[in-house]
Amino acid sequence: MIKFSAGEEFQIDVEPAKSAFLKVKEMEMSGWLDVARLSGQVPEVLAAAEKIRSDSDFLVCIGIGGSYLGHKAVIDALAAGASSRTKVLYAGNSLSGFALEKVISEIGDSDFSINVISKSGTTTEPAVAFRIFKKMLIEKYGVEGAARRIYATTDANSGALHAEAVKNGYTRFVVPDDIGGRYSVLTAVGLLPIAVSGIDIQALIRGAAECSKDLDSAFAYATLRALLASRDFDTEILASFEPRLATFSEWWKQLFGESEGKNGQGIFPAAVNYTTDLHSLGQYLQDGRRNIFETMLIVPDTKCKIQVPEMDTDVDGLKYLEGKSLAFINEKAQEATVEAHRAGGIPVFEILAPASMGLAAETLGGLIYFFEVACAVSAVMQGVNPFDQPGVESYKKNMFRLLGKPGF
Amino acid sequence: MIKFSAGEEFQIDVEPAKSAFLKVKEMEMSGWLDVARLSGQVPEVLAAAEKIRSDSDFLVCIGIGGSYLGHKAVIDALAAGASSRTKVLYAGNSLSGFALEKVISEIGDSDFSINVISKSGTTTEPAVAFRIFKKMLIEKYGVEGAARRIYATTDANSGALHAEAVKNGYTRFVVPDDIGGRYSVLTAVGLLPIAVSGIDIQALIRGAAECSKDLDSAFAYATLRALLASRDFDTEILASFEPRLATFSEWWKQLFGESEGKNGQGIFPAAVNYTTDLHSLGQYLQDGRRNIFETMLIVPDTKCKIQVPEMDTDVDGLKYLEGKSLAFINEKAQEATVEAHRAGGIPVFEILAPASMGLAAETLGGLIYFFEVACAVSAVMQGVNPFDQPGVESYKKNMFRLLGKPGF
Repeated sequence: MIKFSAGEEFQIDVEPAKSAFLKVKEMEMSGWLDVARLSGQVPEVLAAAEKIRSDSDFLVCIGIGGSYLGHKAVIDALAAGASSRTKVLYAGNSLSGFALEKVISEIGDSDFSINVISKSGTTTEPAVAFRIFKKMLIEKYGVEGAARRIYATTDANSGALHAEAVKNGYTRFVVPDDIGGRYSVLTAVGLLPIAVSGIDIQALIRGAAECSKDLDSAFAYATLRALLASRDFDTEILASFEPRLATFSEWWKQLFGESEGKNGQGIFPAAVNYTTDLHSLGQYLQDGRRNIFETMLIVPDTKCKIQVPEMDTDVDGLKYLEGKSLAFINEKAQEATVEAHRAGGIPVFEILAPASMGLAAETLGGLIYFFEVACAVSAVMQGVNPFDQPGVESYKKNMFRLLGKPGF
Repeated sequence: MIKFSAGEEFQIDVEPAKSAFLKVKEMEMSGWLDVARLSGQVPEVLAAAEKIRSDSDFLVCIGIGGSYLGHKAVIDALAAGASSRTKVLYAGNSLSGFALEKVISEIGDSDFSINVISKSGTTTEPAVAFRIFKKMLIEKYGVEGAARRIYATTDANSGALHAEAVKNGYTRFVVPDDIGGRYSVLTAVGLLPIAVSGIDIQALIRGAAECSKDLDSAFAYATLRALLASRDFDTEILASFEPRLATFSEWWKQLFGESEGKNGQGIFPAAVNYTTDLHSLGQYLQDGRRNIFETMLIVPDTKCKIQVPEMDTDVDGLKYLEGKSLAFINEKAQEATVEAHRAGGIPVFEILAPASMGLAAETLGGLIYFFEVACAVSAVMQGVNPFDQPGVESYKKNMFRLLGKPGF
């Protein structure tokens, strides 16, 4: 269902990617590949989501990195078209006091629950936010009432959050041992908040299942990424033409950056939102340094009804567009940009969602699976482990020392 | 007031930057340097802002690129701390039908005005949005009532929007001939929406004036940028530790990308929001390809009162932080990151706003002027014209052809 096109410039042999995929499948952390297993969690997630939607105006999702980017990506893309009385808010993904105050003020006197998402329970940002919102919950509903409103997505057997959840009887969901944070959006990590937002998680998983049936497009994308990396293209830009996909691009940045950026290697992942950024980074992309390739994420807008209205004069020169839909104009802008950037010397790839489906849960499920497979394969082809992130510890160690944490 | 630090690694001779600055001053498009002239527009802007705040719940700002990024940057950073009944909304900065529908739905039955910002009046995205919101305004208030609610920021003497504004008697503001879009935030282009948001535009300009008195820090930054560009550092990352500065980073990306990215040259501008992105791009920055340098934008949080609350157990390992403010922890995270990334082989620069001032209008005014000067000087030192953007036309020409525009 997800198609890949690289234009006429490239001949693609996907055999090495297929071999790399066999290696990925044998790796310990490849649990996310098993879509049937992912489906297994759905009933439990839906039951919890129903309870939350019955008693909460807000669900505060506390998590950072892979514990929040995936579901925020899906929710930002689709929640406006779904119907849920419960709005998902985010906390614990920075150390900004202002950001926390904003969430607290948005909740006000309303009813809320917490979904705290952390493998360990001791990552500083979410742990600090969890203390604050748990205190609010206890003040509002008492100790036992609060415990019934806390949903802990954490390790199955160990860790600080697991211990606390067992002791206090929080509803628990599992971060599987064989699925890392940035590959976890289709586990309970992502599914619970997504379901609370009223988005169809079964359609999301169905999209992943559909994608898993034919991975040649993902292999082609991985193949060309590895090829361009070897030719010193050090930056990839993911471009979309729909602002609702901006957070999806953030998820993509973590997925690729954290999977590939190690041992002095990798392709720096950046994102642009068009046509907005054609009036910002467009000049650089057209005429700047040629170390960049661009991947366009093309999800046709099947719902937009807005057309250019008629006007009695043509002072703005738009008469030729009267009656045309914005979706049509946006589509032409996209085609024009592919053409312009290729002419400017930028390799441009296109990843195309089915035109019939538009921006829907099934589309996003397919794209998530597509990118996860492509990313793991691309990393293996570049000779790095797609599933570790040793560099993330460096700033933490310094921070603990500067903060005077015992033992640092 | 704005200080620059590059650590101990670099010896900086700012004399070549000073010479480049003399060249910048002689260029036609350097009108933004003259802070005294910028102040001249303040009374007229404040009068219009007062009227808008008296009769409008929303001001729809229609513009793209340099016609919206600057004021959105300032408003996103400061509006929450200001008091205004009028909320600024944005339209015409993409071709997304969904984005337009969202603005229309937020306005609902409320009173609103339009600030349409376009040098020419024929750029597709804002021209389409202007047609749509003008029609809404006329349906709601009649032709004459609508004209009293349209504020056109455009060329002083010519162009489609100028002609329409004169004909219909819209209130007009001028995009000066000697100031390009990306350098225009401290003209009426930015000042009107900023003032409508209740932010002190006099303090903003005062910050720029203060910065203009001592440009050595801006020269040092420009000098090191040009030096690293010549050493094949092809990507610069602007990092901030406060989510409210995310749009400011978008403004910075346009400023540098569009000023420098030409003739196959330039430094690709990317942005990260910490500590959020330390759990996303942190791995890449610590251990990935070494073609990147990082500029940290450090604006101390002087207002945050949130502290880590006490808890009866230490299950989350946070006891050592009890009673510490988030601002303090965030500051240590920032110091830790500078140290970690330098140890990882990334040149890290720091741009420091005065600790006493915090995130305030005067701070942002200073930072805007600092970056504008540094950018123009850096471009001249790299041998490119900081004030043109020939590459932006390429996709437009293709798009007009694909859309069937007469003459293309």
